[in-house]
Amino acid sequence: MSDPIRIAILGASGYTGAELIRLLGTHSRAQLAILTADRRAGQTLGAVFPHLAHVPAPPLVAIDDVTDWSGVDVVFCCLPHATTQSVIAALPDHLKIVDLSADFRLADVDVYAQWYGGPHKAPELQKSAVYGLTELARPEVAAARLVANPGCYPTGPHLALVPLIESGLIDPDGIIIDAKSGVSGAGRSAKEGLLHGEVSEGIHAYGVASHRHSPEIEQALSRAAGRSVMASFTPHLMPMNRGILCTMYVQAHENADAATLLAKLAVRYKGEPFVKILPEGTTPHTRHVRGSNLCLIGAVNDRVPGRVILVSAIDNLVKGAAGQAVQNMNVMMGLPETDGLSQYPMFP
Amino acid sequence: MSDPIRIAILGASGYTGAELIRLLGTHSRAQLAILTADRRAGQTLGAVFPHLAHVPAPPLVAIDDVTDWSGVDVVFCCLPHATTQSVIAALPDHLKIVDLSADFRLADVDVYAQWYGGPHKAPELQKSAVYGLTELARPEVAAARLVANPGCYPTGPHLALVPLIESGLIDPDGIIIDAKSGVSGAGRSAKEGLLHGEVSEGIHAYGVASHRHSPEIEQALSRAAGRSVMASFTPHLMPMNRGILCTMYVQAHENADAATLLAKLAVRYKGEPFVKILPEGTTPHTRHVRGSNLCLIGAVNDRVPGRVILVSAIDNLVKGAAGQAVQNMNVMMGLPETDGLSQYPMFP
Amino acid sequence: MSDPIRIAILGASGYTGAELIRLLGTHSRAQLAILTADRRAGQTLGAVFPHLAHVPAPPLVAIDDVTDWSGVDVVFCCLPHATTQSVIAALPDHLKIVDLSADFRLADVDVYAQWYGGPHKAPELQKSAVYGLTELARPEVAAARLVANPGCYPTGPHLALVPLIESGLIDPDGIIIDAKSGVSGAGRSAKEGLLHGEVSEGIHAYGVASHRHSPEIEQALSRAAGRSVMASFTPHLMPMNRGILCTMYVQAHENADAATLLAKLAVRYKGEPFVKILPEGTTPHTRHVRGSNLCLIGAVNDRVPGRVILVSAIDNLVKGAAGQAVQNMNVMMGLPETDGLSQYPMFP
Amino acid sequence: MSDPIRIAILGASGYTGAELIRLLGTHSRAQLAILTADRRAGQTLGAVFPHLAHVPAPPLVAIDDVTDWSGVDVVFCCLPHATTQSVIAALPDHLKIVDLSADFRLADVDVYAQWYGGPHKAPELQKSAVYGLTELARPEVAAARLVANPGCYPTGPHLALVPLIESGLIDPDGIIIDAKSGVSGAGRSAKEGLLHGEVSEGIHAYGVASHRHSPEIEQALSRAAGRSVMASFTPHLMPMNRGILCTMYVQAHENADAATLLAKLAVRYKGEPFVKILPEGTTPHTRHVRGSNLCLIGAVNDRVPGRVILVSAIDNLVKGAAGQAVQNMNVMMGLPETDGLSQYPMFP
Repeated sequence: MSDPIRIAILGASGYTGAELIRLLGTHSRAQLAILTADRRAGQTLGAVFPHLAHVPAPPLVAIDDVTDWSGVDVVFCCLPHATTQSVIAALPDHLKIVDLSADFRLADVDVYAQWYGGPHKAPELQKSAVYGLTELARPEVAAARLVANPGCYPTGPHLALVPLIESGLIDPDGIIIDAKSGVSGAGRSAKEGLLHGEVSEGIHAYGVASHRHSPEIEQALSRAAGRSVMASFTPHLMPMNRGILCTMYVQAHENADAATLLAKLAVRYKGEPFVKILPEGTTPHTRHVRGSNLCLIGAVNDRVPGRVILVSAIDNLVKGAAGQAVQNMNVMMGLPETDGLSQYPMFP
Repeated sequence: MSDPIRIAILGASGYTGAELIRLLGTHSRAQLAILTADRRAGQTLGAVFPHLAHVPAPPLVAIDDVTDWSGVDVVFCCLPHATTQSVIAALPDHLKIVDLSADFRLADVDVYAQWYGGPHKAPELQKSAVYGLTELARPEVAAARLVANPGCYPTGPHLALVPLIESGLIDPDGIIIDAKSGVSGAGRSAKEGLLHGEVSEGIHAYGVASHRHSPEIEQALSRAAGRSVMASFTPHLMPMNRGILCTMYVQAHENADAATLLAKLAVRYKGEPFVKILPEGTTPHTRHVRGSNLCLIGAVNDRVPGRVILVSAIDNLVKGAAGQAVQNMNVMMGLPETDGLSQYPMFP
Repeated sequence: MSDPIRIAILGASGYTGAELIRLLGTHSRAQLAILTADRRAGQTLGAVFPHLAHVPAPPLVAIDDVTDWSGVDVVFCCLPHATTQSVIAALPDHLKIVDLSADFRLADVDVYAQWYGGPHKAPELQKSAVYGLTELARPEVAAARLVANPGCYPTGPHLALVPLIESGLIDPDGIIIDAKSGVSGAGRSAKEGLLHGEVSEGIHAYGVASHRHSPEIEQALSRAAGRSVMASFTPHLMPMNRGILCTMYVQAHENADAATLLAKLAVRYKGEPFVKILPEGTTPHTRHVRGSNLCLIGAVNDRVPGRVILVSAIDNLVKGAAGQAVQNMNVMMGLPETDGLSQYPMFP
Repeated sequence: MSDPIRIAILGASGYTGAELIRLLGTHSRAQLAILTADRRAGQTLGAVFPHLAHVPAPPLVAIDDVTDWSGVDVVFCCLPHATTQSVIAALPDHLKIVDLSADFRLADVDVYAQWYGGPHKAPELQKSAVYGLTELARPEVAAARLVANPGCYPTGPHLALVPLIESGLIDPDGIIIDAKSGVSGAGRSAKEGLLHGEVSEGIHAYGVASHRHSPEIEQALSRAAGRSVMASFTPHLMPMNRGILCTMYVQAHENADAATLLAKLAVRYKGEPFVKILPEGTTPHTRHVRGSNLCLIGAVNDRVPGRVILVSAIDNLVKGAAGQAVQNMNVMMGLPETDGLSQYPMFP
């Protein structure tokens, strides 16, 4: 084995932290150096996550108690939105950082302020941050010190829609994204609305027309279109732990249909290890990607002329969070991109 | 107690049959007279549904063995699509019939033939059948001998959209209905795709742009619009047993918004015991209606100007099947419409 | 309708409170007069339980703000353990009370103190409290002012085992009760361990050899045996909302076997509307009782000679809590015992 | 990479086959050479398991069409019970075989005949078969050509109880094993009882005192005791896909308690990569092992003197089937035992 990549995970007691540890357990070079979790400081990893009790890992510490970062190469930051900016701004320069919060995803700090309830605290740092949807920004990620890992909801729609808008095959206006997510996307906080009794055996929409992933989705669609674009985005909470399915309704341009769109995507993602384009007329299940870093995309012609229905599926904790973070780390460190990410989906 | 209403349930061994029996158990006048189930003929109800073992009920018989219908007032027909037409055509005239299959839902027998793979076998009877979305066809249901009970998917969208199209508040074209259903909608057949291992912890779309409820949805929207209308309809299978949520994307006409639409619906359904309009900005959960005959409808203005997102929730086995069937029976027999249907939702 | 029975529910914002309201909605005479919930005081019932938004009910109030109890006949007390004693002690004499907490279940206040971490605050009142497993204490319940409603876990084992011990058919020593409960038994508190992500797709034992329902179980077994008896009781948390299954391993006395035991139970519960004894060799599913007040009991001879395996199933929120509470109220008020409790189980 | 180990999986279209493929995907030397599935012959792996569509694998073939076994080193046999004996008897001598059916698990072919409804068809071959609970039979597995992979239920109890009986710390008589399994243990057959609607939101016991894993459990306990031993074994079906929890009630011999038993197990399994002994007073969750080859064992002193409650947790598809099969292959082939099995559990 080559030299280890020494990893710090900030905010390691949430589901994303656990998932990073699971994936890094199969990485050929990753080594857990620091795990922080303020409310669980002093505890072992096994006390917080009994399923990881047998993993070689340091005990959890409070972030303020980390004074020496010299033994760390890469930081995964899983802290809550808004608290992340100042933490990252204070990290030493030698560290590569993948931030899994929303704090550096919006290039325009005014848009950030509007959606996140206050001014951005590190606007200079924001300028250097790269939005890390790996397949769409590989060279920028490779050159970055700070990567803003995409949100779980935008990942599938970006992969499906950006190449189609860029190529002019679909109308960038009027796109509707009906999204359905497993509950792990809401984190591990003890909230009434996340109890088993409140989540199982039922579904609902939430954050309708007001979810914070809206500006993130629109940022990428707008860049692809070369002008400002709005999209309808409606998230729904599903009675399951993992997985996001996005059903996207788009208007194809003249002469384009599902086959045309899929052909374009197939070319765009040829050779990509994690993005797979399905045969026309088929659409993916989230259970086909559970536990893996895959994003599956399918398309069907609607009965309404010109309309195409695209469906993407990811595991929100993997390609929608920890997996893409590891993928970005691999790119940033010049490692094989699939290292730590080659596990097959787990079914059932 | 007044004279009993003597009930026959044809095809009583499926989930819809069981749900009819559950609801009728709280009906003030219903009495189970005949239960048929060809493959389970000779068995007790408790052998087929142990949760109903303590219910007073006749044993199951084969439908061909029922020769005397004189002790029956009302027939609920829960037979598979396509087999129903000839069965109902052969029933004696004195029977009132609520058909829960799709066989008599499409007024145009050519459309039926196109979607159901063969010519209609009772086209004359079709002419007399009333499509029984109770709140939208109460007088016709009251006068009918044969009511075609609506499909589970169309019920919510019809209740939400028909009044809005009729009043000209929304554009009848371009409507998108993204629907999510619990697995009981697929029935009790032993199919690999319905196994717990294949349904739980995952979601997927199915029948995209090809589901048989499409023409049923469009039939009502077209009638409301006074011209032929198409709609996008995408069903999804949810890892839960009961409930349908329909997220509907519509374009409001000038000056109309979510508040306008909700006000129209509130007037339309004023005093209705089962259709409830939520305050603007809120949307229903399927768990708010589980086990009840309620249909909840909410609406939110989208960020995209002019677009409104409507969400309806029903229990697919109640308002989407057995409950609406009992409601229709009550109307046909001149009984109080809520008889057998006043149970509150069960949560959690 | 006769005069209404005017009901107060103290602690109405939990699952038990919601279930009481659901059941009382089908009661011929119950009328909701007062609902208390300190943290939700001032809110409507619909704000706390959207599935009950359409139910006629007063708004929630803080318990200390209730000064006039003259408009109330019956109190259901759903407050947390330990806080209940002083609340009930302060209620006016004209009220009949069903307490769903554990505060008055243990006749011996020293045992209470040992298991609940402090001295009993109303030892005099305790003397007048009746332990209300209805089928085993009907005359006492009828005469009581204060009924301690049994815990969810003890209900099934008491119904199955007490008659067998009383009749000397089984050995009162060495009984093992392996219990499995749905998560609603743990209430609606926002705790990490009750999140969907922590409960679904997995099972575990908890409170092994230390659960507070142990002394309650043993109290009844000891009374039946006429001497002090211990039992092994191991609860497990199930990834479902409702239902308790108890698998009980007992040693039958000479010449007794599953058939003997079932025959004894069948005689004991003949005519009981809610306790049903299954044919030998069959055992119940919790889904056969979901939403109903039923308790099903089955038995099978083990391969180990003399050992019999009994299985009981209830819905923990109904026969294990709210349903039995309504049943007790009916008995206390001289009403038909099944009023409000005749709903069939809901499946699936 | 060293020379590949060329693998044939017979009966690859079930959950166990899929799980073998998932695990072997992380094995350093395994290579899929032949996949058979008679009813799916001619189809791609992706047609049968879309989550494995992107895995390099040969198409499925009918087992009778496999005539050349020269390109195969190891056979995993996942065929139904009873059909396996003749298939394996016909395989060429150079193949190492891990049989995941029950056909070669019972050393006494008369016991086999009694429990499996007919005489054993390969009694000579049975004599050479090794019962492959790896940790308890490592040398025998290493020397075997044919390993009978243990059943999912026996694995946890064997690991927990065999060392305790061998050491005389517990009474081999009177042991009670209350077992709870996820539904994947019942396979992928389309049966009514395995539908989502029949499995979710409910639990039940099945095969009480008659499950075919009983003689397998007793075979190991009897060997450990040096005499014939019976045990009570009651399986329950859980509304989840993966995991088996076994709650075991044992009588400790004088002076022994939970601490003594755990200390014995800790010594016995010191250094084992997959068997982990928990601290006294703690018991495992199945979700702590999901997707991994771990077996966790905990113990608690019961309140009933002398009784100890042991709890084991495994993933039925991994340590209870495919994982243990890979582990056995590694031992048979002289490979590192953890190869292909070092994935951490997946949570949530």
